[in-house]
Amino acid sequence: MTTSRPAVPAPGTADPGDGATVAIDIGGTKIAGALVGPDGTMACTTRRPTPRGADGDGDAVFAAVAEVVAELARSPLWPGAVRCGIGSAGPVDSSRGTVSPVNIGAWRDFPVRARVEAELARHGAPLPTVLVGDGVAMTAAEHWLGAARGRANALCMVVSTGVGGGLVLDNRLHPGPTGNAGHIGHISVAFDGERCVCGGRGCVESLASGTAIARWALAEGWVPDGDASAAGVAAAAAAGDAVALAAFDRAGRALAAAIAACATLAETDLAVIGGGVAAAGDVLFGPVRAHLADYAALSFTGGLEVVPAALGTDAGLIGAAAAAMMLPPAA
Amino acid sequence: MTTSRPAVPAPGTADPGDGATVAIDIGGTKIAGALVGPDGTMACTTRRPTPRGADGDGDAVFAAVAEVVAELARSPLWPGAVRCGIGSAGPVDSSRGTVSPVNIGAWRDFPVRARVEAELARHGAPLPTVLVGDGVAMTAAEHWLGAARGRANALCMVVSTGVGGGLVLDNRLHPGPTGNAGHIGHISVAFDGERCVCGGRGCVESLASGTAIARWALAEGWVPDGDASAAGVAAAAAAGDAVALAAFDRAGRALAAAIAACATLAETDLAVIGGGVAAAGDVLFGPVRAHLADYAALSFTGGLEVVPAALGTDAGLIGAAAAAMMLPPAA
Repeated sequence: MTTSRPAVPAPGTADPGDGATVAIDIGGTKIAGALVGPDGTMACTTRRPTPRGADGDGDAVFAAVAEVVAELARSPLWPGAVRCGIGSAGPVDSSRGTVSPVNIGAWRDFPVRARVEAELARHGAPLPTVLVGDGVAMTAAEHWLGAARGRANALCMVVSTGVGGGLVLDNRLHPGPTGNAGHIGHISVAFDGERCVCGGRGCVESLASGTAIARWALAEGWVPDGDASAAGVAAAAAAGDAVALAAFDRAGRALAAAIAACATLAETDLAVIGGGVAAAGDVLFGPVRAHLADYAALSFTGGLEVVPAALGTDAGLIGAAAAAMMLPPAA
Repeated sequence: MTTSRPAVPAPGTADPGDGATVAIDIGGTKIAGALVGPDGTMACTTRRPTPRGADGDGDAVFAAVAEVVAELARSPLWPGAVRCGIGSAGPVDSSRGTVSPVNIGAWRDFPVRARVEAELARHGAPLPTVLVGDGVAMTAAEHWLGAARGRANALCMVVSTGVGGGLVLDNRLHPGPTGNAGHIGHISVAFDGERCVCGGRGCVESLASGTAIARWALAEGWVPDGDASAAGVAAAAAAGDAVALAAFDRAGRALAAAIAACATLAETDLAVIGGGVAAAGDVLFGPVRAHLADYAALSFTGGLEVVPAALGTDAGLIGAAAAAMMLPPAA
């Protein structure tokens, strides 16, 4: 498989004969679409709120995806589209083309790839389609055009209400057999720790997500000034609040342990962090970097760097397109 | 790089025209050598105790390696040798060809690959030589002829006085840029935990090595019946001693968390465990398997298996040869 993956064109060297990629980004709150050019430019960007249908009514949720495809199909660029990439909230199963997003209850083993392919064909575009998890998509975007560009071995992460991620190994996107590799939020850094929503114990997400940071700060006596979210904790930390600083220090230690674990296991020498919590800037990056040496102690992990993501909210769509360019479609 | 790796011949299908591989296994207590055939048969096996030279006298240690090479060179198979593989206690730097084994103090950034190549040439065999860490070598062996044969994504581990390992990803040995990938013993599963000898905190090795198991059991009041090592703890656990059972349960939880972390990050669906502590059998494997569900909770990790290694003490030499067959020599 690895030998058959076409390399993504370096920026500025894309073949102008290559057409656009249909990109679809499926999350718990919104479903977005765009036509992404071979140089990463996005056209015809569109989005819908994710329908809050009754559990089990997967078609109601898919209707929003179908509307997004229909809108893209009205673009003058549509006839030149050459492939489709779908990034979805996980878990996904890219080998079977199905998704079971934690935050879209109506979809369990939902065959989103086949359903999207049918919509594409209905609009005259029977395109090869690649499905990956949103962490893998974000990683593809950062490797193509963002903070991991030119790096051979990198972990890219989203720290937001949850914690997700993806891997670049040997200069290639490494989705794993089911498109879930790099799930850094659900490795345990506290084997004696508390239960995570996933059923695990001591998961990074349960210690370092925005949700976890706000919960811990509140439990330790932090009094929010209006905003009780992680953004509120970050503002308080920036103003010197001791409990808020401790909340970010704890999250930073958990993230440092996880980033170091990935470096120790897979020889990643870069960690890119995006997502809402990363917007706290030095309030988050300071503790992560300060604690890294406590967990990345072996010589070969000595050069490990931690940097902010470069692509922001566009990473989902650019990443869905990038993954489709980097990975072979399912057989 | 990945595209240039020759596949290892499947057992029984080796090209009889392919010659032997010179295999050298360097550890803190012994230095071993063999000529390994294309079907994995070992000939001319030889070993020397690792010299306990004064710190800094790297040549005294290397003299034992040179003796091993000289003995192999007297074999009638020597003229047909086609490559050389070195597996060494780590850390190693396979990109530079140097090693700094924790337990061979006289070698720091010792250029073992160039020195071995010079010995080979001195004996009329200027062979391309590959250097990997011993965890990667053991993994190559288990993937070629052992418990990970035919598996596309696996973690192979040695649980002994220390804890080491290596990775198979996408059906290929994944050594990482410096030959250290898969260092499972030094990922943290206790981010608030105690210092490890490596300088890290809460490392798997500090919780689950034979040394750690024996130390914890003794601290908790276990009274050894002669053998105060992990083998003694294992015998006591098999006889129902509560503290000994608790010692293996704790080690098993730490190993389960680490094995699950690797599965969650890299989509490995098999963990192979070898080394002295694995000889405890169900006393170790029982707790590891029982606790796996506590740490591998995501759907895509549901099929994760844990099995004993198949190759025993031969894994070092067979693995050094296998790594040389699987990986390109340094440029």
